[in-house]
Amino acid sequence: MAFTTKSTIASFGGKLFKLSHPSTTTTTPMAVNLYLPPQALSPTNPQRVPLLVYLSGLTCSPENCSEKGFLQARASQLGLAILYPDTSPRGLDLPGEASSWDFGLAAGFYVDATTEPWSKGYKMESYIVKELLDTVFGDAEYGKYLDREKGVAITGHSMGGHGALTLYLKYPGLFKSVSAFAPISNPVNCPWGQKAFKGYLGEDQEEWKKHDATELVRGWKGGDLKALVDVGLADGFYKQGQLLPENLEKAAKEAGVEGLTVRYHEDYDHSYYFISTFSADHVDHAAKHLGLL
Amino acid sequence: MAFTTKSTIASFGGKLFKLSHPSTTTTTPMAVNLYLPPQALSPTNPQRVPLLVYLSGLTCSPENCSEKGFLQARASQLGLAILYPDTSPRGLDLPGEASSWDFGLAAGFYVDATTEPWSKGYKMESYIVKELLDTVFGDAEYGKYLDREKGVAITGHSMGGHGALTLYLKYPGLFKSVSAFAPISNPVNCPWGQKAFKGYLGEDQEEWKKHDATELVRGWKGGDLKALVDVGLADGFYKQGQLLPENLEKAAKEAGVEGLTVRYHEDYDHSYYFISTFSADHVDHAAKHLGLL
Repeated sequence: MAFTTKSTIASFGGKLFKLSHPSTTTTTPMAVNLYLPPQALSPTNPQRVPLLVYLSGLTCSPENCSEKGFLQARASQLGLAILYPDTSPRGLDLPGEASSWDFGLAAGFYVDATTEPWSKGYKMESYIVKELLDTVFGDAEYGKYLDREKGVAITGHSMGGHGALTLYLKYPGLFKSVSAFAPISNPVNCPWGQKAFKGYLGEDQEEWKKHDATELVRGWKGGDLKALVDVGLADGFYKQGQLLPENLEKAAKEAGVEGLTVRYHEDYDHSYYFISTFSADHVDHAAKHLGLL
Repeated sequence: MAFTTKSTIASFGGKLFKLSHPSTTTTTPMAVNLYLPPQALSPTNPQRVPLLVYLSGLTCSPENCSEKGFLQARASQLGLAILYPDTSPRGLDLPGEASSWDFGLAAGFYVDATTEPWSKGYKMESYIVKELLDTVFGDAEYGKYLDREKGVAITGHSMGGHGALTLYLKYPGLFKSVSAFAPISNPVNCPWGQKAFKGYLGEDQEEWKKHDATELVRGWKGGDLKALVDVGLADGFYKQGQLLPENLEKAAKEAGVEGLTVRYHEDYDHSYYFISTFSADHVDHAAKHLGLL
């Protein structure tokens, strides 16, 4: 189904389109922001551009990173589009949906829920990898600026870093590269992940492992990972053991999987101050694997 | 009086300090953010750096531009500190202080109020040009990173653009350069300015003119202005006649004042998307006049 354009905002020579579309996967309208760089919108020499998908963290909507992440600054120089999906369905009005900041609304964890009542529409995994990508590339108005052949990369922050890593690992070849800011790297072993997976997937921890980057990397057969991860050492959630990037590193090493770079940054926290500081590196990482650098 | 450090946040290789200090001018605690670039904080080769003051617009606090303006990205490369003051006293609890978004709280308009009850503490002009600058340069903890001899530049957005322009014009020599994003350029002739000036300064419109960039530029005797102004042509407030940058341009031209560059940008609005896009240019403008470029 086509996008409705809610607003259009000039940003770094390109344009950010605030969109909405009716999702058959979530059964709700879904908000999504699409940034098109100046190269795509050139009136004289328009170029079809590749796409970077940015998955947001807990409590966020497409707006936060569009305004505070600074990815557009570098994407506008390289000619890369950015897609900012939402973090859950909104409007299902399920019991308890809004009672936690780390479960339910804005906390979809990029899985397809199998438990009632969440299985009604909390299917963010299928929404992202199937419906949303097909919708944006197939859209009559916006698809013409994009080139699926050039490829799609994925990145994300915190819960969205978990989403980026797991969707990259679960769907080999769908994304040309992955990166993550402060990702929840081993959710089966942290409180956020355990709460979300129990709620969305039930008690069977074998099911949880199918959505855990550290578990998935053990079975990875796709060659070099093409993965960049940044973590701040002053990140309170890192210190609480919610992120566990060392477990991901260890699992990759044990499995003989190459191509995972994890950088630890003194003094940096979990906020958009952290994301914005390193956003150019993540755009460059994607651009390199999309043939732009 | 010394600053209390509320928090310290790593950003673009430097640090943002969220500070508070008791102001004798406003009679309240005042929040202020200070960004120190990596050059100032180098453990091996620290350099005392010049300062750019950023004045925020209506409804804003020191937080908005610190997080969304991206001035730090460029300032960190050049070695420039940035000071983000608040937009009004907070905590006076004056009658009607919170009843408008464009007058009172977060709407101090960078003037010293002469009418009751606002004259009690709404003295943002004196606060910025005297107390705050003296406090930051004289501070035992933070002053040592700054070099007042290298100079201070000023910039701002909307109401803060009005503040930057008028304080630059009223205090020749205090600031080495001025720039503004979508400034209220001729407040005596726009609804925002008329409401604020009537409220803070009373009925005498001759008093209003002392705080109007367009009026002040007519009497400017300080040589070339060293002023950069950016305006978005999709800015709703520009289209409503709240900004009136053409009046500033016309007055400068009629007065034979050189050195004012006003740029109009198709499609850009009044938001931080606009500010962030052009922030590097404004940092460069300040850096040039502070001897960094």
